[in-house]
This record gives sequence, structure tokens and C-alpha cells, in this order.
Amino acid sequence: MKFITFNSNGKEKLGVLNEEHQNVWDIEQLSLDSAIDCPASLLEGIKEGESFIQSISRLIEWGEAQASHKYSIPLTEIQWLSPIPKPQKNIMCVGKNYRDHAIEMGGEASIPEHVMVFTKAPTSVTGHDAIIDAHADITSELDYEGELAVIIGKAGKGIKQEDALEHVFGYTILNDITARDLQQRHQQFFIGKSLDTSCPIGPWIVHKDSIQNPNQLQIETKVNGEIRQKSNTEHFIFPIEEVISVLSQGMTLEPGDIIATGTPAGVGKGFNPPRFLKSGDEIEITIENIGRLNNIVK
Amino acid sequence: MKFITFNSNGKEKLGVLNEEHQNVWDIEQLSLDSAIDCPASLLEGIKEGESFIQSISRLIEWGEAQASHKYSIPLTEIQWLSPIPKPQKNIMCVGKNYRDHAIEMGGEASIPEHVMVFTKAPTSVTGHDAIIDAHADITSELDYEGELAVIIGKAGKGIKQEDALEHVFGYTILNDITARDLQQRHQQFFIGKSLDTSCPIGPWIVHKDSIQNPNQLQIETKVNGEIRQKSNTEHFIFPIEEVISVLSQGMTLEPGDIIATGTPAGVGKGFNPPRFLKSGDEIEITIENIGRLNNIVK
Repeated sequence: MKFITFNSNGKEKLGVLNEEHQNVWDIEQLSLDSAIDCPASLLEGIKEGESFIQSISRLIEWGEAQASHKYSIPLTEIQWLSPIPKPQKNIMCVGKNYRDHAIEMGGEASIPEHVMVFTKAPTSVTGHDAIIDAHADITSELDYEGELAVIIGKAGKGIKQEDALEHVFGYTILNDITARDLQQRHQQFFIGKSLDTSCPIGPWIVHKDSIQNPNQLQIETKVNGEIRQKSNTEHFIFPIEEVISVLSQGMTLEPGDIIATGTPAGVGKGFNPPRFLKSGDEIEITIENIGRLNNIVK
Repeated sequence: MKFITFNSNGKEKLGVLNEEHQNVWDIEQLSLDSAIDCPASLLEGIKEGESFIQSISRLIEWGEAQASHKYSIPLTEIQWLSPIPKPQKNIMCVGKNYRDHAIEMGGEASIPEHVMVFTKAPTSVTGHDAIIDAHADITSELDYEGELAVIIGKAGKGIKQEDALEHVFGYTILNDITARDLQQRHQQFFIGKSLDTSCPIGPWIVHKDSIQNPNQLQIETKVNGEIRQKSNTEHFIFPIEEVISVLSQGMTLEPGDIIATGTPAGVGKGFNPPRFLKSGDEIEITIENIGRLNNIVK
């Protein structure tokens, strides 16, 4: 199941992808007409837990029985938003979680021995197909980082690695856009990672039931059609179970929390000379079994 | 004006301090009986802007005209919460913003040339008089950091230093409790700064009209009655105007955002040997014209 948040006449709406027809089920409309209760936003749904998935299934079943186009909108007609447009806290990001990326950023010495986590402000979040602001007055070193992101579904603290995936709601794609000059100047990464529109997320959240092993997914980033990053999440230094376990030691994880799992080698800064983003660049991040996240810099 | 959030029979309530009588005005009750509209929470009020302060003034005027104890609760009877119990994003914290603290942490070389910002998870927030969890199973180096915190009142991006204080709603006291071992082990500070209950805030937010110059306030931290930190915010390396301006370059600041401005010398790690917190320790942070924030470690 793939969960979408989209803009419909200025209103945020929850949708579910109909793969076969390349349509989006309009969950609110289905809920209104069927009188089957369902949360109005994906974040509320995630917080509701298991019964949310059941409600969605019933709604789609009901919708399929109607001979009406009223409940679905062609994918080509929707305005995409981040599946969670306004996260309830900063995005948590694992730094240097692929060996080859750690090496391109600072040699063997920068391969971390322990999980390293920084955050991105919720105001940086944007959706699929959205414009990434070049922020040309502030940075001359804007860079891309294709990443798998984990959405927490069940609260927990002191989570054991063997239980970690039970706390996941699903997975999505995240572009951890970074102003390298700000990142370096301000030491701690927050400022260089938090510019408005520097966190495209989407196009949807794939429910965990559709992902057999999140630590074994092909990931690829293209800039203007040219492959820049190509790896597999099997190369994580710290697999998802370990990241969730470490983060939750003493800190409560909550439904709707977003964890970006790090980026493989091939970022702009890793080239010699560096190949930073410029206005007009199109970035495509593809992750196996999830989909493709597209954005243009302007 | 001093804004309080307190727990009343399991419900979060907004209060305003009545200094003379050491009572708290119950804003919801005043609003109900006077039919003067007012937001039910401090965060909503801050978002409402100037009219919030006007509503509060009218409510208190109305309350003073009633011959009733119905609208005020003795300070000694309330259960304190953080003025903003559930911030909408992570707390933004300036690292090493006092020269003498930078030196105690790593010598002259660690005095920053540029504003350094890390974040604390919203789940770490707790209130005045609350217990700070010792997290003895996770850290053996729990430390205190007394800080002045700024609450943003008006949204802005690319804010100039000369306009910065217009974007402030008020000020409060914040204890940036830190697990030094985790802070060091995980490089980026987020993990070591985000344990549950590691961010006491309060006891109240003082409206900016009561603070003539936030860059000139005495600040003092005691542990078990012994003075550990004693300084003045005039020693900031980066004054509040500069912090707000730097943070807002490319990143939108929003009403309700919390910025901790850094801690002076005298943290536990600064002593030789270090003097970390242990169960039973009582921490008191006092800031001139604001008040005192008390917490006990357990």
C-alpha cells in the first residue's frame, strides 16, 4: 500500500495509490460517502496504528464496488506534497552510513564507529515534483544526497534490535539537500541541512508489508539523467534495526518520526572538482520497491 | 507578563502569574465566564500574535474586578509543565556561545568563529520542579547547562540583526542536560542532548516587554546549593540578534520556536576531576528578571 498526501484546492488530502489505474483514491471522499471512519491525514492515521490500515482497506474495497470515478484522481492531475507535510519534530538523519561515502567526504578516518545523527528542520520539508530553492544568495555549494527514509509507526524507548522493525510504519525516499559551505562553516550540521525546501520527501510512503528487507534495496540518484549515486542499502554501516535501537536508548521514538538512513558515495562534493547543484538541475532518486522522487533546483 | 502552562486534573492549562498574590490566573476559566475569547494554550496564543496579549490583559482586568477566588490558583498548588510542553520542532541550541565555556570544553581552539547550532528532541522537554531521569543505564556523565532561551513570536526568514528582537515573543530558562559520553561517542550532538527529560524549561515565559536587554542578564547555576556557573549574557560571543539573523538565513523561523543561547563556564565536565550529576542532585538556574528553574535528578 502506498500512501500519498496531495493538495486539492488548497487543502491537504490523504490518498492511496491505485497502481493498476495510476489513480489516487480520495480517502476523505470515500470515508464521507461510505460512512466508514478514517483519519483525514496520514500523520493521524499513522498515530492510530493497525486499525488505520484496516479502515483504508475497507474504504478501497467499498470504492471498488462503486461504479463511479468520483473517488479517484489521475496521478497526472495531483499536486504532490510530502506524505507528512509538517512533521512534528525535526527529521533525524544518520550521517556517513555508507563506507564509500564516508571515505569520499574525509578518507578512512571519517568512517564512524558509532551511529552519528543530526537533524533537519521541519520547515525544510517539501514534496515530489516540488522546486528546490537554489538559495544562491546564501550558498554556492548546494548538494544532493539520495536516501532511504524510515517512518516510525509505533512509539518505543529502549527498543531492541530484534524488535526494531515492528516499530516501523513504512518507507519513503528523501533527498537530504545540503549546503556544504554552511555545513562546514557552522560545524554542527543543523544549519547547513535546514534551508527551506532542502528536504524533498516522497512521492509516497510504502507500507512496511510491501518491503521484505529494507536493508537490501537498490538506490540510485541521477542529476540531469546522469547516474551519480548507485548502491544498495545492504552496504549500510549501521542497518535500520541498529539505528532505531541506538536512537531509542533513553529517547522515546513516536509515530510519525522520520529517520533518514544516510547516503551512498557520489554526492557532488565527492567529485574532483566538486559538482554542486545549479539552477535548472533535475534530481531523480530511485529506490527499489518504493519508486522515484523527482525535483528541480531553481 | 509571565506565562505559565500547568497541569490541572490531567489537562494542560494556560496561566498568567499574579506576582502580588503569588497566584496563577486561570485563563480558560476567565475566558469562559467573561465571554472574552482567548486561545487555550500558550503555543496557540504565541501564534495569534499581538491580539493575544490584548486578550490576556482584558481577561486579567475583568478578573480583578470580580470578587472571586475562582479565577486564581495558588502557585504552591499547581503542577508545573514546560510553558510549551510539546514544541512543534526540535529545540535549537547554540553551542559554545560563551568564551570561557568554549575554553573549558576544549581550549582556545574550540572558540567558534561562526554560530554553531545543534538540536534537542521535543520529547526531551519537561517543566519546572520535574524530575530529570538520571538514565544511569545509558550514561555515567550526565551534565547540566544553564541557559537563557528565546521564544520566537513572529515568523521570519532572512531577518536582519536590527529587526531580530521584533521576532521575539519572550524569554525563559532552559537546562540543556547533556550526556557527555554520548555527546562524544556520536560526534554530532543530537543523541547526547536528546534523552527524555533532558530539557527542563520554565518556570514561565516572560514577555519581551519585561526584559530591557536580553544580552545583559545575570545567569547563575547551583547544584545542591553550590554555585557552579555565574556569568552574564553580556558575554555571549554571538548576541541574540546575530543568532536569530544567522538561523533565519534561508530557514523560516516560526512562532513558538525555541532557541537556547548557550551556557557559560562551570559545567560538570569543566572541573578536574569532572563533577557529573548523580541521583538526588538538585539544580537551580536563576536568570535576572526571569526567575528560577529547579529540578532534581533521579
